[in-house]
Amino acid sequence: MKDFKYYTPTEVVFGKQSEEKVAELVKKYGGTKVLVHYGGQSAIKSGLLDKVCGLLSQEGVEYLMLGGVVPNPRLSKVYEGIELCRKEGVDFILAVGGGSVIDSAKAIACGVPYEGDVWDFYLGKLHAEVCLPVASVLTIPAAGSEMSESSVITNEDGGIKLGYSNDITRPKFAIMNPVRTYTLPSYQTAAGVTDMIMHTMERYFTHDDDMTLTTEVAEAVMRTLMDSIFAVLKNPEDYRHRAQIMWGGSIAHNGLTGCGVADDWATHQLEHELSGMFDVTHGAGLAAVWPSWARYVYKENVSRFVRFAVNVMGVTNDFTDPEGTALKGIEAMERFYHAIGMPINIHELIGRDITDDEIKEMARKCSRDYKTTQGCFKVLNHIDMETIYQMAK
Amino acid sequence: MKDFKYYTPTEVVFGKQSEEKVAELVKKYGGTKVLVHYGGQSAIKSGLLDKVCGLLSQEGVEYLMLGGVVPNPRLSKVYEGIELCRKEGVDFILAVGGGSVIDSAKAIACGVPYEGDVWDFYLGKLHAEVCLPVASVLTIPAAGSEMSESSVITNEDGGIKLGYSNDITRPKFAIMNPVRTYTLPSYQTAAGVTDMIMHTMERYFTHDDDMTLTTEVAEAVMRTLMDSIFAVLKNPEDYRHRAQIMWGGSIAHNGLTGCGVADDWATHQLEHELSGMFDVTHGAGLAAVWPSWARYVYKENVSRFVRFAVNVMGVTNDFTDPEGTALKGIEAMERFYHAIGMPINIHELIGRDITDDEIKEMARKCSRDYKTTQGCFKVLNHIDMETIYQMAK
Repeated sequence: MKDFKYYTPTEVVFGKQSEEKVAELVKKYGGTKVLVHYGGQSAIKSGLLDKVCGLLSQEGVEYLMLGGVVPNPRLSKVYEGIELCRKEGVDFILAVGGGSVIDSAKAIACGVPYEGDVWDFYLGKLHAEVCLPVASVLTIPAAGSEMSESSVITNEDGGIKLGYSNDITRPKFAIMNPVRTYTLPSYQTAAGVTDMIMHTMERYFTHDDDMTLTTEVAEAVMRTLMDSIFAVLKNPEDYRHRAQIMWGGSIAHNGLTGCGVADDWATHQLEHELSGMFDVTHGAGLAAVWPSWARYVYKENVSRFVRFAVNVMGVTNDFTDPEGTALKGIEAMERFYHAIGMPINIHELIGRDITDDEIKEMARKCSRDYKTTQGCFKVLNHIDMETIYQMAK
Repeated sequence: MKDFKYYTPTEVVFGKQSEEKVAELVKKYGGTKVLVHYGGQSAIKSGLLDKVCGLLSQEGVEYLMLGGVVPNPRLSKVYEGIELCRKEGVDFILAVGGGSVIDSAKAIACGVPYEGDVWDFYLGKLHAEVCLPVASVLTIPAAGSEMSESSVITNEDGGIKLGYSNDITRPKFAIMNPVRTYTLPSYQTAAGVTDMIMHTMERYFTHDDDMTLTTEVAEAVMRTLMDSIFAVLKNPEDYRHRAQIMWGGSIAHNGLTGCGVADDWATHQLEHELSGMFDVTHGAGLAAVWPSWARYVYKENVSRFVRFAVNVMGVTNDFTDPEGTALKGIEAMERFYHAIGMPINIHELIGRDITDDEIKEMARKCSRDYKTTQGCFKVLNHIDMETIYQMAK
C-alpha cells in the first residue's frame, strides 16, 4: 500500500435548489469581481447563465463574461481570459459548464498572477504558487474537474494537449443540479460516463492489490455508473440516475478511488494524442483505446483483471482459467461500450482507417519525442504505444 | 434522494512517514503558537509526543501542552484548555490522540474566541461564527472526528453528553500513521471498528433507497472494516488492515456515506445515555443497543434490512421470506459483535442487570425531558426509547 494524501476541499452543493446559493458562495470565498466563464449556446438557451448572473447582480457582486470555450479547450482562449481578467481586475473565476470550461478557468486562474507564459506550467517548467480562486456551476458531468486539481489544455500550435495538476486550483465550490443535465445528448452523456469510469479504472488497475477499501469503493462507483447510464439513455429526465452520474463523476476523480494505490493514466495519455490529432470527444477516444491497452497489459496482473471481470462486469469466474476470465471482462467492457454507443477501436472513432504514419506521429508525441514512458501498471515506451495504437486500429 | 452538501476540507496525510510533515502543516495553516492537546500516557510512552514537539521546535513553532483528556471527554477539561489558550495567546490547537482528544480540541477552539460559556453551543443556544484552527495527529481510529464537523462533550454536572456540529471545526489536516495503532488493545480496536461501522449504518438505514451510489459505497466500507478487524485481532501489527481500519474510520464519518440520504442517529443518541450514565466505551455501548434498535424498527423498511443482510452480512437471500432474511442479518451482526469481543446487550456491557429506574432515567434524558424525539428511520419518542432499552436489557 502506498502512502497517500487525500485533499478535497471543494464545497459541493448538490441538488435541485443548489443554484440559488451561487452568489452567497462566491462572496463566502472572497469573490468581488467575477469572470463568468462558459462554453457555447446551451448555457444561454437553458437560462442558466441568466439565472447565475441575475443572482450575482442581486447580491451586488460585479461580473463580466467570457464564453466560447470549446471541447479540448484551447490555449488561445486561456490567453484571452488572462488578458481580460488583468484588465478588469477580476478576483474570482466562475466556470459555468463542463470539464472544458472548468479546465480553461483553472488555466486562466494560474495565468493571471504569473508574469510568464501560463503554458510553462503545462510544460512542467515550474509550479504555480498562487492563483485566483476558481469555482463552478457544473452542467456536464464527465471530467471531474469540479473537484479535481487538474486541467488539460490544448495548444493549437502543434495540437499539443497537456495536463497540469496543482492543489491550489481545486475549485472552492461546485454547484451541481442534475436537472441541468437532462438536455445533454445521449452521445455526450455516454462519453461522460466512459470518462468517469476510466478515471476510476486508471487507479483500479494497479499492483497495489492490498488496499481493498479503495478497490471496493472503486467497484461500487463503476457498477453504479454502468447501471445509471442505461437508465438515462432510456429516459433522459430520470433524476435519480442523472444525480448518480453527476455525483459519480466527482468521486471518480476527486482522489477517493486512488487512496493508497499507484495510478496508471496510460490510457488517458494515449487518448490525448487521439483527441489532439482528430479533435474527437475525450470519452469516446478512451473507449476506442482501452480494450487494446487492456489486452496488451493484462498479464502484468491477471488477478486484478479477473477481479474486474467478476466484481464489475458480472462475468462468471472460471476458477480454472484466470486468463480466460480476465479476457471475458475486457470483452464485456467492449459490449458495454457498444451498448451505450461508444466506439471500441479507432476506426469506429474517426470513421476511417488510421494510417501508420498517423500512429507513428501519435506515439512520437505521446512519448514526448521518444523520451518519456507512460503508465506504471505496465510502463509503456514508444514502441509499446505504437503496438497498442496498431491493436486499436 | 435528498439534496446534500459535501464538504471535507481536511488535508489527510496518510502513511508511515506522515508524522514528519506535522510542523510544515501547522505552519501552512497559520499556527504560530500551538496547544498540543493529548490524553493519557500512551502518547508519551510511544514517543509520539516527543517526536511531534521536537518537529515543532525544529521549525521554530512555539507550543505548550495540555494532557489528561479522558474517554467521553469532560467539559471541565475544555474550560481548562480555553483558559490556558487565552492566557498564552494560542492560535492553533493540535490534537494528538483519538476522538476524545480531537473533540475536546474542537470545543476549546470554539470556546476561546467566545465570551460566553462554550456549553451554550452544545445546548443549541447559538452557533459559533469563528474558532481557532484545529488539526490532529490521529492515534485511535474510531470516531472519525479527524475529518468530521462534530464533537461530543460530557458535562460532569448531571452526566449530560451532548454533540455539536459546525463546519468551521473541521480539522485543517489529519496525520494518520497506521503503525501508531499497533499497540491499541484488542477491545479498543474492536470498539473503534464498531463505532465506524455504526457511523455508516446510521446513514445506511434510511428511506432514501434511490441513492444506490452512496449505498454501494457504504456497503464497501462496512464489508472492508468487518474483514480487517479479524486480521488485526489476529495480528495487531498487520499494516495493511490497520491502514484500512484507520482510513475506513475517516470515510465512514466524513459525510461520504450520507450523500443524498436522510440519516438516523437514534442508536448514537440511545448510546450517549449509556456512556453518560455508566462511562462505558462508546463503541461497546453502540453494539449493546443496536440489535434491539434494529429489531424494533426493521419493519419500517424491510427491503433495506434485507439488502444489509445480503450485501454486508453475507446472508443468503430467502426471496420468499424478506422478514426472515432481514432478521438473519441482525443475528449475523450479533455474531459479528460477539466474535470481536463486543457486547450485544446492556447486561454484557455493564456486567449486571440494569434497573427499570435507570432505563426510565435514560429515556428521560435521551428525550430531553420527554420533549424531543430521536431518529428518522423510525421516529422514537420516550416510550419507544424505553422499549428499546428494555429489549436491550
